[in-house]
Amino acid sequence: MSTETVFTIGRQFGSGGRKVGKTLAEKLGIPFYDKELIAISARDSGLSEELFANADEKATSSIFYSLVMGNYPMASGALGVTEMPLNDQLFLIQSKTIKRLASLGPCVIVGRCADYILREQENVTNIFIHAKLADRVKRAIDVYGIAAGKAEDVCLKTDKQRANFYNYYSDRKWGMCRTYDLSLDSGMLGIEGCADLIIHFDKLSTAHKGLPI
Amino acid sequence: MSTETVFTIGRQFGSGGRKVGKTLAEKLGIPFYDKELIAISARDSGLSEELFANADEKATSSIFYSLVMGNYPMASGALGVTEMPLNDQLFLIQSKTIKRLASLGPCVIVGRCADYILREQENVTNIFIHAKLADRVKRAIDVYGIAAGKAEDVCLKTDKQRANFYNYYSDRKWGMCRTYDLSLDSGMLGIEGCADLIIHFDKLSTAHKGLPI
Repeated sequence: MSTETVFTIGRQFGSGGRKVGKTLAEKLGIPFYDKELIAISARDSGLSEELFANADEKATSSIFYSLVMGNYPMASGALGVTEMPLNDQLFLIQSKTIKRLASLGPCVIVGRCADYILREQENVTNIFIHAKLADRVKRAIDVYGIAAGKAEDVCLKTDKQRANFYNYYSDRKWGMCRTYDLSLDSGMLGIEGCADLIIHFDKLSTAHKGLPI
Repeated sequence: MSTETVFTIGRQFGSGGRKVGKTLAEKLGIPFYDKELIAISARDSGLSEELFANADEKATSSIFYSLVMGNYPMASGALGVTEMPLNDQLFLIQSKTIKRLASLGPCVIVGRCADYILREQENVTNIFIHAKLADRVKRAIDVYGIAAGKAEDVCLKTDKQRANFYNYYSDRKWGMCRTYDLSLDSGMLGIEGCADLIIHFDKLSTAHKGLPI
């Protein structure tokens, strides 16, 4: 099975979306980028990995945060120069990295607004993986090793952060059907099943290309 | 290909969701209910089809509407009896019809909060069909015969009405990924492709039943 497609994967925390993406990439024999984007963006830009890791999927959240980070746009005397908040600068650098990687050929990219960043590229399929909260809490405990008393909170708070990041940097809404080409409840299919269904989607959409509904 | 599943289909106007459901039902050899629910609910209740047709997928929208319809809950003297708005009564009757039909075996039900109404039934798969606005406008003109100057407006207003109806009668959000098990952009796959993918989903989810993510 071969493909021409760049797959972007948004995901609820605990849904196994990352694992779905990895399995998909392995089945198709194409590169997979998740946390890998941090090291590559750092290499591309010459900035430290730590900077990218700290800003990873976080929106420029508040004036307080920016002040603490020392990057709140201040009036700069006669020049009137204002500096872009650090997270926004890192987002732009990472966007360039994502565009470069996607231009090299089919791959799987997890999170980081990749669907929005690649909105003008051909052959991109945007996927969202979600699951019922109970299933995600179970996975957070059993697979990620999060303490039982904290798992639900981590699921909800991480999703909130991801939604904030996505909605801040795009003009779309995280978690809405119309933002994606395909959304799946991973609790219904499991990791392998999700990857299998995405491959079937890819086959059908390739055959349908250029035709009306 | 046989199935044990009741499929509910939510859909954006112009996405061909109704046609996807009909094609799916034909491929699987199971009953299909869309507008058919109006006649069946009327027969079940002894009320007129016209009443159900007028209320079809409309929420009890405003005090003004209820006053016009003569069913705004008024204080009724010493008894203090208030009457439920007509649309709410019709919704309850139609809900009973939907539960009865779904209890008879696999079928496809379009719209009408069926996913929410059947939330306690086993073997229900909830699907949402959407598409890019340009694709839906094209279909509204070419297939439904809506005037070119009006098609976009009809798409947007009908979706607003469907969202209002759904969000009023359920505790879920219309058009959010997490409301459904599977959401699909019909512009990517076409009608046949969507039906084909849903059948593949059904096969995979039946095999995965009871397992964790």
